[in-house]
Amino acid sequence: MHIEPEDVGYAAVWKPTPGALSAFPNLKAVFNLGPGVDALMADTTLPKVPIVRVAIGDLTGRMTEYVVMHVLMHHRQQPYLNQSQQNKVWAPKHQWAASEISVGVMGLGTLGRDAADVLARLGFVLPGGAQARRACRVSNVSREHAGLKDFLARTNILVCLLPLTPDTRHILNRSVFSQLNHDSPLGGPVLINAGRGGLQNEADILSCLDDGTLGAASLDVFEAEPLPTQSRFWSHPKVILSPHNAADTDPTEISAYVARQIEQFEAGRPLENVVDLTRGY
Amino acid sequence: MHIEPEDVGYAAVWKPTPGALSAFPNLKAVFNLGPGVDALMADTTLPKVPIVRVAIGDLTGRMTEYVVMHVLMHHRQQPYLNQSQQNKVWAPKHQWAASEISVGVMGLGTLGRDAADVLARLGFVLPGGAQARRACRVSNVSREHAGLKDFLARTNILVCLLPLTPDTRHILNRSVFSQLNHDSPLGGPVLINAGRGGLQNEADILSCLDDGTLGAASLDVFEAEPLPTQSRFWSHPKVILSPHNAADTDPTEISAYVARQIEQFEAGRPLENVVDLTRGY
Repeated sequence: MHIEPEDVGYAAVWKPTPGALSAFPNLKAVFNLGPGVDALMADTTLPKVPIVRVAIGDLTGRMTEYVVMHVLMHHRQQPYLNQSQQNKVWAPKHQWAASEISVGVMGLGTLGRDAADVLARLGFVLPGGAQARRACRVSNVSREHAGLKDFLARTNILVCLLPLTPDTRHILNRSVFSQLNHDSPLGGPVLINAGRGGLQNEADILSCLDDGTLGAASLDVFEAEPLPTQSRFWSHPKVILSPHNAADTDPTEISAYVARQIEQFEAGRPLENVVDLTRGY
Repeated sequence: MHIEPEDVGYAAVWKPTPGALSAFPNLKAVFNLGPGVDALMADTTLPKVPIVRVAIGDLTGRMTEYVVMHVLMHHRQQPYLNQSQQNKVWAPKHQWAASEISVGVMGLGTLGRDAADVLARLGFVLPGGAQARRACRVSNVSREHAGLKDFLARTNILVCLLPLTPDTRHILNRSVFSQLNHDSPLGGPVLINAGRGGLQNEADILSCLDDGTLGAASLDVFEAEPLPTQSRFWSHPKVILSPHNAADTDPTEISAYVARQIEQFEAGRPLENVVDLTRGY
């Protein structure tokens, strides 16, 4: 069966070449195969059809795994324990309780809320106060939000799961890090970024790790990926990095989701998770 | 104030010298400052008074942290990711979902149930079937329980939180490991022991890691502690070890608990968590 461009009603894409989608004049919807739509948003020739952000159950679970594991590794001094094992040294250090550590999740959307729920179940403190909570909702995060200062001042471990928009680009910078709470047994605040590389000012992260403004960092995303070999992140003793694999999407589950959405749409029911083009995610 | 041995009504101990407690003729109760009472049980001169096993909320939370973190580290291939970072190699591997991995908790007491609850919340499969569940209750575990075979055959990651009794000594041996389920993306079954060193046959663990009967192990406890420098566990590439620090008890919380118990007992109310001397925990 030969398919002409005008026969195509739906496109399922991940970071397509800008302009590529404009070849299909009869598109009814575009499925973005992941939660981050920043690449699509940058395409000025994007057809004026609904864009569905595919952020399904499986992906949420995987992100929660990543966040919970990295919070626990910093909390339980796993880099120190790895080093001790390498040196064949049996030297347990004082271990504090989860209730002594507050974890602030910046970007309380579907992913962030699920991770925060498990962290609370494990006994970590989530920074309280209505204003602080409002400040870290995805829709509110900006450098200027009144609650942000309060939120940061109560946070020992900062988890960032924000979407990348013009408002959030480089929001993870020295000014934000220096407002984090230093007063915990961790020794210094910890940054965990599994959102987008563009959220972070990488020179600031390195200099803040070097001067103690940050105590440690887990980074899954980078401004340039794959991370260049010459990056100082690879060998920095305070960095745990991973190759943008915090939340891979499962091809089987994702295909079933897209098929179900198309079926519903064709039956006249609304699409789920449609991107708001004015806010950009 | 001078205190004579006959003035002592309560003792709070951790692995006291055998015979030491018999110096106090008027003891009313002994508080064991941790969940493992195997050292006390081995003391044939132990006064015939109630022994309280101090296993309080904080300790449960800490053990759950340890179990969840180690399950996640194996599940998410963290040793491979650490190695990749060291080698400055950006090479994400296929990552499977939590729903593809079953975690069997051997020893479903207070600690085991809490850890299992969080693991289920994260999407891991807990081996089902009434018989399998019965087999891993603390009170039922023995090499002979009919459900054990079924439980092991459904388990990809075996978490052991059993008390050490004559029934459970060396229960973690080649026979048990070879019955575990090999059919998972992990490549081989994983052992996580945070119970007692005496539960494990260490020669069997090493030979099973070497021949692939086990894919990996996290060990927090050992037959001899501190673990001797010459032990192969230190440098075994498939082992993540820690210096018996999975669940440190918090001195402040534990003291308050013991004081509260004494107060209640003196007011004529029953003690909590009294050890059953016939079952030995």
